[in-house]
Amino acid sequence: MAYKGLIEKYRSVLPVSDKTPVISLNEGNTPLIKARNLSEKLNFKGEIYFKYEGMNPTGSFKDRGMTMAVSKAVEEGSKAVVCASTGNTSASAAAYAARAQIKCVVLIPEGKIALGKLSQAVVHGAEVLEISGNFDEALNIVKELSSKYPLTLVNSINPFRIEGQKTASYEICETLNCAPDYQFMPVGNAGNITAYWKGYKECHEKNPKAKAYKLPKMMGFQAAGAAPIVEKRPIEKPETIATAIRIGNPASWKTAEEARDESGGVIDIVTDEEILEAYKLVASTEGVFCEPASAASIAGLVKYVKNGYFKDKKDIKAVCILTGHGLKDPDIAVKNAVKPKKVKASVEEIIKTIKL
Amino acid sequence: MAYKGLIEKYRSVLPVSDKTPVISLNEGNTPLIKARNLSEKLNFKGEIYFKYEGMNPTGSFKDRGMTMAVSKAVEEGSKAVVCASTGNTSASAAAYAARAQIKCVVLIPEGKIALGKLSQAVVHGAEVLEISGNFDEALNIVKELSSKYPLTLVNSINPFRIEGQKTASYEICETLNCAPDYQFMPVGNAGNITAYWKGYKECHEKNPKAKAYKLPKMMGFQAAGAAPIVEKRPIEKPETIATAIRIGNPASWKTAEEARDESGGVIDIVTDEEILEAYKLVASTEGVFCEPASAASIAGLVKYVKNGYFKDKKDIKAVCILTGHGLKDPDIAVKNAVKPKKVKASVEEIIKTIKL
Repeated sequence: MAYKGLIEKYRSVLPVSDKTPVISLNEGNTPLIKARNLSEKLNFKGEIYFKYEGMNPTGSFKDRGMTMAVSKAVEEGSKAVVCASTGNTSASAAAYAARAQIKCVVLIPEGKIALGKLSQAVVHGAEVLEISGNFDEALNIVKELSSKYPLTLVNSINPFRIEGQKTASYEICETLNCAPDYQFMPVGNAGNITAYWKGYKECHEKNPKAKAYKLPKMMGFQAAGAAPIVEKRPIEKPETIATAIRIGNPASWKTAEEARDESGGVIDIVTDEEILEAYKLVASTEGVFCEPASAASIAGLVKYVKNGYFKDKKDIKAVCILTGHGLKDPDIAVKNAVKPKKVKASVEEIIKTIKL
Repeated sequence: MAYKGLIEKYRSVLPVSDKTPVISLNEGNTPLIKARNLSEKLNFKGEIYFKYEGMNPTGSFKDRGMTMAVSKAVEEGSKAVVCASTGNTSASAAAYAARAQIKCVVLIPEGKIALGKLSQAVVHGAEVLEISGNFDEALNIVKELSSKYPLTLVNSINPFRIEGQKTASYEICETLNCAPDYQFMPVGNAGNITAYWKGYKECHEKNPKAKAYKLPKMMGFQAAGAAPIVEKRPIEKPETIATAIRIGNPASWKTAEEARDESGGVIDIVTDEEILEAYKLVASTEGVFCEPASAASIAGLVKYVKNGYFKDKKDIKAVCILTGHGLKDPDIAVKNAVKPKKVKASVEEIIKTIKL
């Protein structure tokens, strides 16, 4: 039977019933791409896989949580979803709200947001309101709105989002026929590392005797300029080119630390330079285009290969989560592009230039 | 077993052997999304489906052909792929070449191309050469290059591209358990309508007695400013916002006419206004974001619903092909966006504004 989205597939492990109207855009079921070229290049003693979440319908992993959040909102009779967001969350919320034919309201702080970042939310018909106040005030208002009116908050504190997102762990285990040994991923608001860890634990508990479904070590990476968990303090003005993880005070801080500690993993930093390097590396060695935040997972893997973390290990399966598609942030690609070479319109000149 | 790309899935109907090295990014297997909201809105007497080809790895249907073209290039010992393209073809060629770890050379005419359009090709490591000459000259040079040197031309005259692209018809038939009655799609270079028609005919021939696998009518749409097939003459300076179908002299002109005539379908025009209207309609009623050229298929459907074509018909299954993801052309979305409303940071003000 044709795949019909993650709620239908994982119905038995999600908080839905026959009465839940399923609002889906066929999210999930994303490819796990074996990265042979990268393994060779890094001289990695095992297998590297990319979980390419950019292949969700709106181009990021947020769709996994949003299909749940919006389906439950409709079930509960909500007339609208609301979020304070300028990026992937608003894009996903707007798309699923359109599919459900309910309103989507996006609150943004005044004067700071380039319209380009909001192009998806806008095209899906979201009502974008610019409020006099900063991001925290916007978040407070959406919380108050959803507590007083028949609106549902779909920011990451919505618990159904974690439930939807955890299905990615199920998919990885099913594709590999086992859990990976290590999972590398970016950490921003920290909902995603929380969700993956929940998913892996559930898979493990259902197969307590199956050695294959052991628990992976969770290896989370924050950008150096936005690393509150690593620095053990909120960062007032987080800065990084990886906008999707430019978060100073993660909503799921505590559960991210639990994932790290329970799994015996790490949460560490990577610099913007390392992120950008990894971003180009993935695109040029494997043909996979991800957004800069996603490349933090690859940058983390590269860092840990180089620092000798895997020295005495072999036959390792490492999965890197690529959270969003590179098309989400075309400006970064263009900014880092070399200009085309000018060549005479002659076959001989061209052959000389490309050095076959 | 996990899906491993369209060559593995459709090996028996593709010109590959055990010796063909499969270069894949898990292309294909794209969702067929039922568009209930749109059916209702148009008062359509049947079912409308979107084949969402934007969910291919590089964001367009080109990946279907490119997995074949690049795999065969590697099989034949080619050291590089080459194309004259400024858009989706170069993005796809560069990604698959990176995956295969062979070179990709992209020729563009000098001085006319915004770097943004080439961001994907560049990030995947393609060598972009700007030649002194126009697009036709660039195409002539790549043809000559590939005839004299161990380079493979992957522009649409590469016959393996049609083979890869035809698999979309197989997927549609398998998902619906039958062929649709009508297929609406954009027509630019016309390779895609050629490929779909080939795919449908093959499905039909394999099930000659199965009434379900009847042949659909092929309904192709060109942009009004770039409609050579409709106007029965090459268009010297084609113009349309739908850049992916801005083609004045289609490579697969003759086979597109055959698809139209053999199927009893049409090739007709839609205006840029109709395309833009359809583009917003799809995004806001179904949560599906496609590039403007893709919206030509929806614009065509809307036009034919309005002109009474379906008047006496019912229980129709119509599939609209959405060839590329909306993220491919974010500028169009921003250009057509309304500016955010400014509102005081107060729950009451906001509730008044959004009129729940």
